[in-house]
Amino acid sequence: MKGKFILALAAMTLCASAFAQQNLFPSQDLKSAIVNEDKSVTFNFLAPKAHSVQIVGDFQTTDGSTNAGMVNSSVIDMKEGEGGVWTYTTAPLESELYSYLFMVDGIATIDPNHPYVFRDFATLTNLFVVPGGRGDLYSVHDVPHGSVSAVWYHSDGLKADRRMNVYTPAGYEANPKKKYPVLYLLHGMGGDEDEWKNFGRACVILDNLIAQGKAVPMILVMPNGHVGMSAAPGESSWGYYKPYHVNDAPLAYETNFMDIVNYVEKNYRTYTDKAHRAIAGLSMGGGHSANISAMYPDKFDYVGLFSPGVGMKGISDDMKANLKKQFQKAPKLYWIGIGNADFLYGSVKSYREYLDSMGYKYEYTETSGGHIWKNWRIYLSEFAPRLFK
Amino acid sequence: MKGKFILALAAMTLCASAFAQQNLFPSQDLKSAIVNEDKSVTFNFLAPKAHSVQIVGDFQTTDGSTNAGMVNSSVIDMKEGEGGVWTYTTAPLESELYSYLFMVDGIATIDPNHPYVFRDFATLTNLFVVPGGRGDLYSVHDVPHGSVSAVWYHSDGLKADRRMNVYTPAGYEANPKKKYPVLYLLHGMGGDEDEWKNFGRACVILDNLIAQGKAVPMILVMPNGHVGMSAAPGESSWGYYKPYHVNDAPLAYETNFMDIVNYVEKNYRTYTDKAHRAIAGLSMGGGHSANISAMYPDKFDYVGLFSPGVGMKGISDDMKANLKKQFQKAPKLYWIGIGNADFLYGSVKSYREYLDSMGYKYEYTETSGGHIWKNWRIYLSEFAPRLFK
Repeated sequence: MKGKFILALAAMTLCASAFAQQNLFPSQDLKSAIVNEDKSVTFNFLAPKAHSVQIVGDFQTTDGSTNAGMVNSSVIDMKEGEGGVWTYTTAPLESELYSYLFMVDGIATIDPNHPYVFRDFATLTNLFVVPGGRGDLYSVHDVPHGSVSAVWYHSDGLKADRRMNVYTPAGYEANPKKKYPVLYLLHGMGGDEDEWKNFGRACVILDNLIAQGKAVPMILVMPNGHVGMSAAPGESSWGYYKPYHVNDAPLAYETNFMDIVNYVEKNYRTYTDKAHRAIAGLSMGGGHSANISAMYPDKFDYVGLFSPGVGMKGISDDMKANLKKQFQKAPKLYWIGIGNADFLYGSVKSYREYLDSMGYKYEYTETSGGHIWKNWRIYLSEFAPRLFK
Repeated sequence: MKGKFILALAAMTLCASAFAQQNLFPSQDLKSAIVNEDKSVTFNFLAPKAHSVQIVGDFQTTDGSTNAGMVNSSVIDMKEGEGGVWTYTTAPLESELYSYLFMVDGIATIDPNHPYVFRDFATLTNLFVVPGGRGDLYSVHDVPHGSVSAVWYHSDGLKADRRMNVYTPAGYEANPKKKYPVLYLLHGMGGDEDEWKNFGRACVILDNLIAQGKAVPMILVMPNGHVGMSAAPGESSWGYYKPYHVNDAPLAYETNFMDIVNYVEKNYRTYTDKAHRAIAGLSMGGGHSANISAMYPDKFDYVGLFSPGVGMKGISDDMKANLKKQFQKAPKLYWIGIGNADFLYGSVKSYREYLDSMGYKYEYTETSGGHIWKNWRIYLSEFAPRLFK
């Protein structure tokens, strides 16, 4: 918040409210998700008629510890104060991006005083950032910003126009002869082309890493990873339906992935060699990245598998043959990260054991927590600075 | 919804849910905002402990009529059925885009079973579209889609990097020598650069009008209209604050507007003459459009004032002098639209009377309803086909 604007706000409220669209409801005259000086966070919710108001978030677990991600989030009772305002203040929190919701008499609801939400599959969740550490990497700063475009490419293989997000780094427009490397960044089964951009904070992370000199300027391509879905929910001719999981034919996505690469290399100023292409993804997108990079061993020198869906049914003979070709022309970086509480931990372990048994070189990072965005943001933040150097 | 996917969904649910990020809450196993065959709409909400659940939306007014926009929306009691599912079905509705929220024991909450929301100022509201008429213009169809980019330009005048959205029509990439006309589309006092794109459906409307041959392919530029705000809430270094109204110095925006035009004409393939520039806006942005087009009488041949903030304190001598210059070089189209229940109706009437008294030619459209997005979407849909022909 900018304190200098508060007085102006007070003076303008009457006048300005007449200019806004007539809202269905007046906004509650409260602030919530306030980050205090000691990094504790205060939530407020007006509900004079409620019998109970609770908060659930990924900042506190059932054993009272903080910062463990979304696994075992505890439901915390808020306390009713004057005028029916329920309140709760956390312990001081580590710098991170956090999610939360309220429970009002047992019914989940978002915070009406903090309208920042992201949709994950069919659920909206409130968000806030505690600054002063890792959270700063997920926050917009006064640094040069890249452009983020939602574009539609035509896939000849899938016979459809499909939507994707493309980030071009700051300076792309001002340097019309400069070429850039490309990171293809893939989402998980419940996601779509918007998820890395929104919940994953990928463009903000890249802006910040590039401004800090930690990552080289690169183009970031975030396609939709479902062959049965041309665009994120609400962005296609399916309209405003309730999002559901789409079932894709095995390898249909991977087989048609070069339609995306070809579109990008035709329409953006990119390098077009293996040394300037990276592919990474989370969960299902990690499986996609493993498969695609192995199917096209001359295309990607950098591979990032974030909590990847690999090895769950063993490794097929085709995949073994592809991996063999891929590692004969060893990629510069084959990077695997997973949380120690991830339900895919076992299958990723099997996959690593196979790589080990074959002498294929990779790097491995293990973090705490489960199959959660907190980890995927960390993995991107560690992976991106390693690229194209 | 695509019926053919439902079975696949049922089969995949168990497996797929394991792949999604572990959500704070399981989604309710319900659908809501279901458009029925007769164009009535059914809402469902699971709340077994609630004493009352109500719905408020812009589809029904206090006198029981439908489709009057947000003025006098009535609060409607929902009926509790089996298992604590509250339900309500509307009368058949005209084809439109509608907004709604639930009231649970008096507390406003969004619909957890229909995760399409748009933020207007500090409030989130659910949305749905009834097809078969005007609503179709606001829905994504299988037509060629333009690209939508969030870009940052530098304003020398305001000494700041500022964010805007730019729509380039389908075919822009495929026709690298073609030039395009530009419509600058400005938001109101409670808005930001995202509002026309999101709530206003401007890019979808343009996609559809162009595909129908009703509008010529054009670039759409949606800048932020507050000099005290570099980007929409959540997209700037202000972080995730509670949005409030920003107070801008008079004419500061208008005086620096050419920084935007110059950036656009440098970085996009545009025509650069008056006949290929249009400017339009709603409410405060209508005032901006009137002022800017009059201050720069050689720049814009098409001017759209949607429920504009003009004439509220009379018309200044400077503005009268500027209007005189503007209409000496008569613009091809000077278009004013307002709802008959708009709180700005009187001041717009005074402004029109001044134009009439001076013999300045304009077109005027009066619709029903108040100061609402329903009208602004209609005005854009009527204005855009008139441009650049």
